[in-house]
Amino acid sequence: MRIDIITVLPEMLEQTLNCSILKRAQDKGLVEIKLHNLRDYSLDEKHKRVDDYPFGGSAGMVLQCEPVDRAISSLKEQRIYDEIIYTSPDGEQFNQPMANQLSLCENLIILCGHYKGIDYRIREFLITKEISIGDYVLTGGELAAAVMADAIVRVIPGAIGDEQSALSDSFQDNLLAPPVYTRPAEYKGMKVPEVLLSGHQAKIQAWELEQSIERTKRLRPDLL
Amino acid sequence: MRIDIITVLPEMLEQTLNCSILKRAQDKGLVEIKLHNLRDYSLDEKHKRVDDYPFGGSAGMVLQCEPVDRAISSLKEQRIYDEIIYTSPDGEQFNQPMANQLSLCENLIILCGHYKGIDYRIREFLITKEISIGDYVLTGGELAAAVMADAIVRVIPGAIGDEQSALSDSFQDNLLAPPVYTRPAEYKGMKVPEVLLSGHQAKIQAWELEQSIERTKRLRPDLL
Repeated sequence: MRIDIITVLPEMLEQTLNCSILKRAQDKGLVEIKLHNLRDYSLDEKHKRVDDYPFGGSAGMVLQCEPVDRAISSLKEQRIYDEIIYTSPDGEQFNQPMANQLSLCENLIILCGHYKGIDYRIREFLITKEISIGDYVLTGGELAAAVMADAIVRVIPGAIGDEQSALSDSFQDNLLAPPVYTRPAEYKGMKVPEVLLSGHQAKIQAWELEQSIERTKRLRPDLL
Repeated sequence: MRIDIITVLPEMLEQTLNCSILKRAQDKGLVEIKLHNLRDYSLDEKHKRVDDYPFGGSAGMVLQCEPVDRAISSLKEQRIYDEIIYTSPDGEQFNQPMANQLSLCENLIILCGHYKGIDYRIREFLITKEISIGDYVLTGGELAAAVMADAIVRVIPGAIGDEQSALSDSFQDNLLAPPVYTRPAEYKGMKVPEVLLSGHQAKIQAWELEQSIERTKRLRPDLL
């Protein structure tokens, strides 16, 4: 799999995308993640400008058609992309099923929104999927791109050492995960539930399922 | 405002938290963001270990009570915290009103979940607020902490140059933002809506509101 991220702030992502699971998945050759600085596609040789004032006089700056079009076109000349994603707070809500589905793609472009957004013509004519990671506004789409890359890469088989672990995470079965505990069995008077120390696997699994259902009912009834 | 982030992967956040608006807000003295490596609070001098196998035999690793308790206690000795937040996919959904509200706090701790999670006793006895940035599973809470910090700091007065811009963003009035356009007025045959070139402010504002309402009805009827 290959993920191309187009951004005005590659330095916000460089280190982040080279840590932990994302680093290991790249080292193992499971995914290639490439950052592209939008300014490299500016026709303004001197200032590398990629934004301009919005028509109509509202506040903020808008990313221009031309550099975005040039960046996407240059990538599309090199390979076929499954999706050209734009990160935007008004896009489709990102969730685990979407992460699972996108993890099956071969090539993805993620265009990071910035400032007030991109010229709407790009959204209408070049973008194939608009995704929001949640109902909040960020400085730019960079963190949204990192979140998506992390969630997507994490479910590629082989990306995390212990595959059983990913499958038992929250959301994979529409249930929240049960509480987890580790040593010591007693810490400052706080004890681990006895069943977990019993060694009785059937009882432990029944308790975990019961806790998952109880927690989901209480905290996220919408998932059931 | 001060935000203390406790993590096993400070290197995943260092650069990210020192870019763009987050950097400027820190340079202006509007916010102090401190990263704390959980391993510095490990009692294991040699390996700095902070995790252990879960009781009950399930897959994955669990962050232990002791280092987390020591990290949080050491911070609490120095100042009073409004909230001690744990990033978890089963927490309360982060959204713009929550970002606005948290931006009024003086001191926040964000504890990043990692591996299979933290020992549940920490969640019961030390955490005051559990927050999820969306219905997907990430490698750890680091990106969630960055997303929260970005959304919170962005709305602190003075953090972004043009305050009008933050107020007209999506979600601040429960409406999605209208489409934006910038020069050129025609790009490869694609034209900017004529009203935006009219210079007639009342008509432009009416068009923008109409577009906001139409887009919200079509894309996010749940917001209305």
